[in-house]
Amino acid sequence: MSQELRAVEWTGTGLALIDQTLLPQRTETLPVHDVDTLVDAIQRLVVRGAPAIGAAGGYGVALALLQGEREGWTEAEVRAAVARVREARPTAVNLMVCVDRVMTRFAEGLDAVLAEAAAIQREDVEANRAMGVHGAEWLLKKVGADRPLRILTHCNTGALATAGWGTALGVIRELHSRGSVEVVYADETRPLLQGSRLTAWELVQEGIPHYVQADGAAAGTILRGEIDAAIVGADRIAANGDTANKVGTVGVALACADAGIPFLVAAPTTTVDLATATGAGIHIELRAETEVLEWAGHRTAPTESRGHNPAFDVTPGRLITGLVTERGVLEISAGELPGDRLR
Amino acid sequence: MSQELRAVEWTGTGLALIDQTLLPQRTETLPVHDVDTLVDAIQRLVVRGAPAIGAAGGYGVALALLQGEREGWTEAEVRAAVARVREARPTAVNLMVCVDRVMTRFAEGLDAVLAEAAAIQREDVEANRAMGVHGAEWLLKKVGADRPLRILTHCNTGALATAGWGTALGVIRELHSRGSVEVVYADETRPLLQGSRLTAWELVQEGIPHYVQADGAAAGTILRGEIDAAIVGADRIAANGDTANKVGTVGVALACADAGIPFLVAAPTTTVDLATATGAGIHIELRAETEVLEWAGHRTAPTESRGHNPAFDVTPGRLITGLVTERGVLEISAGELPGDRLR
Repeated sequence: MSQELRAVEWTGTGLALIDQTLLPQRTETLPVHDVDTLVDAIQRLVVRGAPAIGAAGGYGVALALLQGEREGWTEAEVRAAVARVREARPTAVNLMVCVDRVMTRFAEGLDAVLAEAAAIQREDVEANRAMGVHGAEWLLKKVGADRPLRILTHCNTGALATAGWGTALGVIRELHSRGSVEVVYADETRPLLQGSRLTAWELVQEGIPHYVQADGAAAGTILRGEIDAAIVGADRIAANGDTANKVGTVGVALACADAGIPFLVAAPTTTVDLATATGAGIHIELRAETEVLEWAGHRTAPTESRGHNPAFDVTPGRLITGLVTERGVLEISAGELPGDRLR
Repeated sequence: MSQELRAVEWTGTGLALIDQTLLPQRTETLPVHDVDTLVDAIQRLVVRGAPAIGAAGGYGVALALLQGEREGWTEAEVRAAVARVREARPTAVNLMVCVDRVMTRFAEGLDAVLAEAAAIQREDVEANRAMGVHGAEWLLKKVGADRPLRILTHCNTGALATAGWGTALGVIRELHSRGSVEVVYADETRPLLQGSRLTAWELVQEGIPHYVQADGAAAGTILRGEIDAAIVGADRIAANGDTANKVGTVGVALACADAGIPFLVAAPTTTVDLATATGAGIHIELRAETEVLEWAGHRTAPTESRGHNPAFDVTPGRLITGLVTERGVLEISAGELPGDRLR
């Protein structure tokens, strides 16, 4: 993959979002010039991944200012539009954090807003690069550098999910650049197949050997000794280390704990929400039942059946061997809690 | 569901199999009059579920005899055809056990063979009914009878998977008949969606309230306290209680152990393979990569990606609270091992 890949790009007059609902079959860019389109794009997962929607949300403030100017909105109307962007999805903290950060420059006008949004994007890439190095070095030290590693990951945490490079996938890319990846097992990540469609696509671009597997296969693959470590991203991390991430994550963590292999979470410190004490305080988004009951618009389950579709789950901190941030690795299950270390 | 539903039925001249690849959209029966068609039906999962393929395999001996008569086979050719049926799928022990049992009557001719196959089918339904009662009573005693239960299940273990009634789903049906089911969470069971397509269809027929969820949602649903007990079937149970079942099962078991709720396996004693000491000795079928890389014939993953597609996993006996057989409930994690109790 070219390091130029940008899931979220400011064009000068609006946003260009790679439409992640169409990958890997089609690579198309969605132009976004109004707030409604941005909110819809975030909710439909045209853009997804906590850091990527954070970056998009930051630019959303600029979009609201520009649209307000075109359409003669009052300041209150612009602020209301920004609030809709901020609340487009509830679980990832990055969206709220990034919108709030850009809003600190709101009174200074468009140029300041754009500068702040661009700074968020630039800093996210820098954080990802730093995480990649910290995570790779920790793994090589703890698991061993004598042979390439077999890594399991869940959902997509690559360039597509971030402002660039990737969080968990950034660690994998760093390991790969050092010749230390034997193979990646990418959970397909139902219901929307971010692993099968997006992670696999990024791994193909990078030339990293990989298998796609059903999410249900992860625990067995780990317990059979086929994996050296698992690494995932995060949507929100509470002060005690409890971590909300894509549904299916906690099952991977339980299997790693049972097998005695490291389970790592890679996320920038902007994903840590010190105002939330534990995972019990994290709002888990319930998405449309049809995502699990249908496939490409065709019903697969009986028409009478209901669906249960939480988009995320919470992995207790006790199951997280290491939290990789741009500052280093916190060994959470050993008691290095974000609430103590990152305030 | 009518108790007359038969996934596997002998018509007098051949087998009639409900084509489970077409459910729930279409209910069609596949007529089977030759061994090739039967082997293909077992491999394509037209008929699936350990007890159901056992029953079909038993009748397969009769099919081989009839086809041999029509086509002038030698006895060796008939025996070779039976061996192909016996080895059509590797993991479930029932197929081998049932074919071997019917073959003990081979020398007596077609009528004896058919009588033995019919006895297997009849006994399986009886065993299922007994399991239903044992499992339901154990759950009501251990989890409590003061309110209806919230039960999680994985894959399909109902009338479709057996000679009739069901194993794990038989326990759920028995609980439902006593007014003791609040709701069933049916894991969709990727890659072939036996939960979403088949379990949900049976639950609809029975009028049992249910949700379909992604397999990855199971652990989170359990850890959030939304489930009182999980119950699944089995394809092969080793002497120490280690149990092969549909891929994804061990993840459910890990979550139940972490949450401190019962994890039950319901299977007739014919699924217990005392010749296999531990789960390490169970051959896990690897199925076609395309099952996980495609959806309804359309590629979802990148064309360059490989798939990892084990059809089963092994749940260590230490994670199995109870094994429900027609003889009662063995509390495996408490040390009641099949190898000690069922010889």
